Amino acid sequence: MSSKPTIPSGTRDFGPDKMVRRHFIFDTIKPVFEKFAFMPIETPAMENLKVLTGKYGDEGDQLLFKVLNSGNYLNKSKPIPEHSSLYTLDIQRLDSPDKSILNTLTSSISDKGLRYDLTVPFARFVVMNQNDIQFPFKRYQIQPVWRADRPQHGRYREFYQCDADVVGTESLICEAEIILMMTEVFKNLGIVDYDIKINNRKILSGIAEAIGAKDQETDVFVAIDKLDKIGIEKVLEELDQRGIEKSAQEKLKAILSLSGTNVEKIVKIKSIIDSETGQHGIKELEEVFDILSNFGDVPTQIDFDITLARGLSYYTGAIFEVKANNTTIGSISGGGRYDNLTGTFGLQGVSGVGFSFGVDRIYDVMEELDLFGELKQSTTKVMLTNFDEDCTSKGLAILTKLRSEGINAEMYPKSAKMKKQMNYADKKGHPYVLFLGPEEFSNNLFKLKNMESGEQKEVSIEQAIDIMK
Amino acid sequence: MSSKPTIPSGTRDFGPDKMVRRHFIFDTIKPVFEKFAFMPIETPAMENLKVLTGKYGDEGDQLLFKVLNSGNYLNKSKPIPEHSSLYTLDIQRLDSPDKSILNTLTSSISDKGLRYDLTVPFARFVVMNQNDIQFPFKRYQIQPVWRADRPQHGRYREFYQCDADVVGTESLICEAEIILMMTEVFKNLGIVDYDIKINNRKILSGIAEAIGAKDQETDVFVAIDKLDKIGIEKVLEELDQRGIEKSAQEKLKAILSLSGTNVEKIVKIKSIIDSETGQHGIKELEEVFDILSNFGDVPTQIDFDITLARGLSYYTGAIFEVKANNTTIGSISGGGRYDNLTGTFGLQGVSGVGFSFGVDRIYDVMEELDLFGELKQSTTKVMLTNFDEDCTSKGLAILTKLRSEGINAEMYPKSAKMKKQMNYADKKGHPYVLFLGPEEFSNNLFKLKNMESGEQKEVSIEQAIDIMK
Repeated sequence: MSSKPTIPSGTRDFGPDKMVRRHFIFDTIKPVFEKFAFMPIETPAMENLKVLTGKYGDEGDQLLFKVLNSGNYLNKSKPIPEHSSLYTLDIQRLDSPDKSILNTLTSSISDKGLRYDLTVPFARFVVMNQNDIQFPFKRYQIQPVWRADRPQHGRYREFYQCDADVVGTESLICEAEIILMMTEVFKNLGIVDYDIKINNRKILSGIAEAIGAKDQETDVFVAIDKLDKIGIEKVLEELDQRGIEKSAQEKLKAILSLSGTNVEKIVKIKSIIDSETGQHGIKELEEVFDILSNFGDVPTQIDFDITLARGLSYYTGAIFEVKANNTTIGSISGGGRYDNLTGTFGLQGVSGVGFSFGVDRIYDVMEELDLFGELKQSTTKVMLTNFDEDCTSKGLAILTKLRSEGINAEMYPKSAKMKKQMNYADKKGHPYVLFLGPEEFSNNLFKLKNMESGEQKEVSIEQAIDIMK
Repeated sequence: MSSKPTIPSGTRDFGPDKMVRRHFIFDTIKPVFEKFAFMPIETPAMENLKVLTGKYGDEGDQLLFKVLNSGNYLNKSKPIPEHSSLYTLDIQRLDSPDKSILNTLTSSISDKGLRYDLTVPFARFVVMNQNDIQFPFKRYQIQPVWRADRPQHGRYREFYQCDADVVGTESLICEAEIILMMTEVFKNLGIVDYDIKINNRKILSGIAEAIGAKDQETDVFVAIDKLDKIGIEKVLEELDQRGIEKSAQEKLKAILSLSGTNVEKIVKIKSIIDSETGQHGIKELEEVFDILSNFGDVPTQIDFDITLARGLSYYTGAIFEVKANNTTIGSISGGGRYDNLTGTFGLQGVSGVGFSFGVDRIYDVMEELDLFGELKQSTTKVMLTNFDEDCTSKGLAILTKLRSEGINAEMYPKSAKMKKQMNYADKKGHPYVLFLGPEEFSNNLFKLKNMESGEQKEVSIEQAIDIMK
């Protein structure tokens, strides 16, 4: 093959410069997870399709990457019951294949798929290991996932997820700790201008009941979730189209206009909602704030936002979303409490709460805000020049010395023009170059060049080590 | 679905206890790579099949996991030229499908496969980014690979590779540094009893020529590679079967019986080999030893082994293999120099040398030798008990204090029987438990239990922090 190779659409290579930045993000998140007693797990890239299918809705099923069975997959495959002759299939292939035929063929030649998220594999892990796991079980997981989505700006077919969940307890300490982990991670990354939006699924139910639209919950929430994008008038229009009564709309409008501090908003909403579920939701929210103040100061970024209505089909308590302000990116983290993560695999009654960091979006926010500025492109501290055979022989001992002091270092591998060697160090982003020529060895004084400032000093090896450390 | 879920055969989940050990291995290797100025890259899990196919031999092609094209793959797929009716295919499916039909169908419904190793994706990366890369290019890469091999003990369908390569230089400093990286990693892992076997492809050619079997190189090497497994007599038998002449066998036997120190073996082999290629290989080997002594002490684990003959189809210079002694595992690292890594993608003349650590094997060696002994199962240092509401409220401030001191800590999330809470801490492998009851708070003295020794002390929070740090 002589034509230039390519990578599949929607996937990416990460070269050293990007990896240094990505490692910085992962290496910031991991210790925070561990500080809060979450422990790592990893699951296989491939899961049985039985495990994945039906968990992400029809659309999700379409977006699963399916892996062809290995070997003679036609021979080993199950018979295709409804289409005993593939002849039928061939005819249809030429036009537009019938979906059910396609599904039947697929399931007969593919048993495995690439994981679509980390949540379903985690639920599968918990169920498979339920007898060995100590509940409450706190795990974090940082691995790529794959989705056969149409690739577009900022949307990839392979991307990392970075999840932490605790299952097997209803303690609201967990909700409070999620907020603390968020604030600690963003502080350590240097992201300062963001909001942690918090709401509660039960409060949303209470609102639906309070405005007399209990049976149209989903219609109401889907519309109000768009409030900050389309404004109140468009939301009301949409509610009209969805058949929500005018009187309900008026009540909802009043609720949506609630403003003030978190405490003020809680007081107001408490007076509007009267259902038991709704009041329970408010109590949970208040308790999370109480727990946070017991931990120390309640983070100022928290914003009780009654329009936050994500994950309605699975969240049952707290709902979180973090939005970076003054960027084009928006949401960079989110999560919530669910009551039945493992029910689909036959293990009932396991309540949990979890959240994830959107690593690709965090990366983009940090680029946009120039927060990687201080971070060196290179993990290597210094290049030693390669002058001639004699200097190289002596220089290798110096290289050993530097490395034994914990300094990441290399020698240019061959003697070459100094301009070429300097260009190499410069392009790689090495902060220092140490010159090892005959004159230097005769004086035991070596020129150390700071590649950023251009400053050059004559130093002993010990001094060079001190400067570079 | 109510039946218990499973994972695909040949794949594994890694729970927290295994992950802590795996992280220990990765976190030992990465800083060594970086100390030697290798920088990280990552490539996508899926590669275009055009990139992968034909790189691993026929057998390798069979072991590629292929991903079904997404959407209506039948509709979008290329026509199947030789089999315009899939009816034919159906007939064959019932018996044993013809391989060429299978290949034709596969290539019409699958464009992508999971990466089989990290070498081909690396070559593809270098070619695609040749204009942005600064040569010599040193990269390391730690990612999983997938092979549709028959799963068996110690052989998985998903496993991590851990590679470091430098391309774009012929400098033998690189060979020496590979040996130094190996010794540093194994030292830091606590593995002490191992051999770094080194040989050179050119020396092997020289041997073939010296015994008069230049045109039967491969036959000779495949046989002598088995020497330590089957013994000299069986090797000679095999050479007989492969049609190697008796006179050549006799000469080979003499060479294989060479013994002594590395230097002694080099002197002897030098007197036997007279071809230019062979002498060149010896010179390279000697230079690697020279460079190592310039770096400092030549590692005592190095063993010049003329029977080492791996990777004959691609290695062109140095060949390495590390074998752990006194274990059932054997090879735990290996590598070599190649001249034409990127030629298959149209970029000629890029020489390189690389090696990899077999992380799963290293894990097994460390388990076998009980080298994880000192490593804590848990990344969490202490559990705080949960007594009642009041103690919890006060205890959360203590939790914040411990965490701010860098101590990974958690509070049991709900008040529960002390036995249950202690059992949780014990099973999770937490080294300490801090008791937070009403009496403790009234005296500001807290019981701190060392879970390993069972020892219990009454301490202030400050003292507890000192002890745990």
